[in-house]
Amino acid sequence: MKTICDASLMQQDAEAARLRGSRLALVPTMGALHDGHVALLHAARGRADLVILSVFVNPTQFAEGEDYERYPRDIDRDSAIARESGVDVLFAPSPEGMYGKGFQSFVSVEGVSAPFEGESRPGHFRGVATVVAKLLNITKPHLAVFGQKDAQQVAVIRRMIRDLNFNVEILVVPTVREADGLAMSSRNAYLSPRERAEAAVLSASLRKAEELIRSGERRGEAIVETMRGMISSGTSGAIDYIAVADADSLARLTDLHTGQEVLITLAVRFGKTRLIDNIQITA
Amino acid sequence: MKTICDASLMQQDAEAARLRGSRLALVPTMGALHDGHVALLHAARGRADLVILSVFVNPTQFAEGEDYERYPRDIDRDSAIARESGVDVLFAPSPEGMYGKGFQSFVSVEGVSAPFEGESRPGHFRGVATVVAKLLNITKPHLAVFGQKDAQQVAVIRRMIRDLNFNVEILVVPTVREADGLAMSSRNAYLSPRERAEAAVLSASLRKAEELIRSGERRGEAIVETMRGMISSGTSGAIDYIAVADADSLARLTDLHTGQEVLITLAVRFGKTRLIDNIQITA
Repeated sequence: MKTICDASLMQQDAEAARLRGSRLALVPTMGALHDGHVALLHAARGRADLVILSVFVNPTQFAEGEDYERYPRDIDRDSAIARESGVDVLFAPSPEGMYGKGFQSFVSVEGVSAPFEGESRPGHFRGVATVVAKLLNITKPHLAVFGQKDAQQVAVIRRMIRDLNFNVEILVVPTVREADGLAMSSRNAYLSPRERAEAAVLSASLRKAEELIRSGERRGEAIVETMRGMISSGTSGAIDYIAVADADSLARLTDLHTGQEVLITLAVRFGKTRLIDNIQITA
Repeated sequence: MKTICDASLMQQDAEAARLRGSRLALVPTMGALHDGHVALLHAARGRADLVILSVFVNPTQFAEGEDYERYPRDIDRDSAIARESGVDVLFAPSPEGMYGKGFQSFVSVEGVSAPFEGESRPGHFRGVATVVAKLLNITKPHLAVFGQKDAQQVAVIRRMIRDLNFNVEILVVPTVREADGLAMSSRNAYLSPRERAEAAVLSASLRKAEELIRSGERRGEAIVETMRGMISSGTSGAIDYIAVADADSLARLTDLHTGQEVLITLAVRFGKTRLIDNIQITA
């Protein structure tokens, strides 16, 4: 495994690999790798000649007062996991290398960025779209691999790729969960033991929503209310949002139509830690 | 010469040409080709194996009430000129092909888009940056060729390319002028004979500014005032802006420093027709 920190060198390497006829896959991450990331790397490994892992805690996707500074960073551990997971190139740029003097260009995706995370985290998806555009231009992949865990991020990136004609295929890998159902996340490390135990309610509420839909419930608000009840009663979780939405446009759904792709998505705070989770199902 | 209207086909062709080892050059235009465009095509022809000319009147760079509908369009004439100028591929997409259903992603370049054209034409450079990002992704050029005539556009695109890591070199070709100095522009066709005669004052005022700087004038405002006097006295031109600015940041200059790269830029309306012109010199 090769480690590259400089964007120009990475770009030259990627271009050379393309010219050799290699198929390139990019797995963009903020590091602090866990089994969810490993699943992305394995999916990439099975579909490409050259697997590039980017590790970059992207300042432009954190709003003022969020956890940019304290976000976990351990490049040696990440590097070891990358090596074990069959990564060919670890791209680990510095903030200064990615956002040089006078940086002032941003990619905005308007509609799908607006609800949910967009309401709670102003500027977040502008930062995400911008850094992903940069990473796609630097690493020139044929395939980019993302986790279903960040469902709205996937919707934003899909839209950006289609709208701006990036020549890349997207693969979305199912969320990897702990034994009690909690979606794996680098932010789980922030939780106290009590919060960690309570947080299992999130995936339980999503499973309940799925069960309701499977048994014929078609009223979006009724599903949300059931989930709200589960989370509010008996846990300290403070609900940021719970939504039942169209999986493509992310518009909230009053009535679900049978056969429709539906995203059920939530964000809940336990103490200072904000967790997100979702499931996507066919109604 | 091959004509392609579909973005996916263009992208496949460009990728295939890159994999064959060809060097690709893109000349992005809105058509209505004149000798200024021909100079761009000749510059591209001398520097690439495959010259791609895009002809697309881009709706997103026109503000409400501007000349999007009446902008001159003559693809047969453009095609003939392209063929004579050694173009290999004419890429002529439709508005629907470029901005499909649900389009919502935009590239914004903040600082250099703000003054001058940015003040007079809200959203103009967001449209320019967005369409150029799309064209770069579709045509995958090694080199993109622009005219000095649109100096601020060049500054915006340079900034976008650097900030978003587009892997493309930029070539800027000097403005081509009519015998009396008027910068060639597709919009010159809108001018009445009297307006056309008066419009020569624009390049004359820029030459005067150059002369003042060459003879030691270092006060930005004094240069602007001399130009303003030339245009206001004796022509019907309504000045939108005249500015002496740093060529890179586009910040207006109160005092010029010897050795500094200086952009002198203006926009003036003759009747309903808005003309721009500029020169860049070393103070």
